[in-house]
Amino acid sequence: MEYYEDIKPHQKHRSREYYLSEEEIVDYAKKWDPQPFHIDPEHAKNTVFGGLVASGAHLYAILMKLENEKRPRPAWITVLGLDKIRFLSAARPGDVLVLEDEVISKRESKSNSNAGIVHSAGKLINQQGEIVLTVEGIAMLEKRPANGTPSSQSSAR
Amino acid sequence: MEYYEDIKPHQKHRSREYYLSEEEIVDYAKKWDPQPFHIDPEHAKNTVFGGLVASGAHLYAILMKLENEKRPRPAWITVLGLDKIRFLSAARPGDVLVLEDEVISKRESKSNSNAGIVHSAGKLINQQGEIVLTVEGIAMLEKRPANGTPSSQSSAR
Repeated sequence: MEYYEDIKPHQKHRSREYYLSEEEIVDYAKKWDPQPFHIDPEHAKNTVFGGLVASGAHLYAILMKLENEKRPRPAWITVLGLDKIRFLSAARPGDVLVLEDEVISKRESKSNSNAGIVHSAGKLINQQGEIVLTVEGIAMLEKRPANGTPSSQSSAR
Repeated sequence: MEYYEDIKPHQKHRSREYYLSEEEIVDYAKKWDPQPFHIDPEHAKNTVFGGLVASGAHLYAILMKLENEKRPRPAWITVLGLDKIRFLSAARPGDVLVLEDEVISKRESKSNSNAGIVHSAGKLINQQGEIVLTVEGIAMLEKRPANGTPSSQSSAR
């Protein structure tokens, strides 16, 4: 586990490559965001996008999936908020996405003496190096448990 | 279709009620955000949440689903960005969520004479009236097509 104490301002992380298939774009959007340019390849040709593009909700889901694959695993208690999400380039079938993020700053929690607050900036980038999405996150992380006390994620409140 | 011209600052919208099941919370999180407090009811009891809670990505997906059900359907070209997402209360199995949103302001697009930009504020509220999530959105909407010209969503670039 990566605890609050382990986090260093300006530390960076780069995820694995994530292949975005047409089937996944359509399946996700049919369930959650069924706009024509997300679910109908023929119809999408005649929109401003000129073809099928992934839903913004889908892109955020992919970002969370890649965050969850980080090792060591961050000792998240909760995400408090997200700011400045910008959808800068469309994500299309066959794109290969990578998540890059960087810690902006950290501070002690005012409400929870066993936790700290970490601000970070993330971006999804495609195989051309274009930025698909940017986001800033505010997360609460556990501090390292003293004396082998189990962490709140594993057994303690 | 609800075009840019139809949007009135301070107009409000309230969605239907959305029932959040434990099965849906776990299914979504297993695929996109497999943290213990989203996927394992027993383990979740021993976290700060005291039980299973929905992933933030899942809550944003539900918000998009309810936005898509609006009628008349907003003539979205694209969502440019999201700001000030705050996860204020946990969403739990059996909760009934409603999306309320309000137009903050509108303006002409500088880059697209056939479009306008609409800022809005949304919130997901549970059956106790607690705010689960707040978000501010910036969307680009089509203007009403002149002379019966097909809209960009239906056939024109």
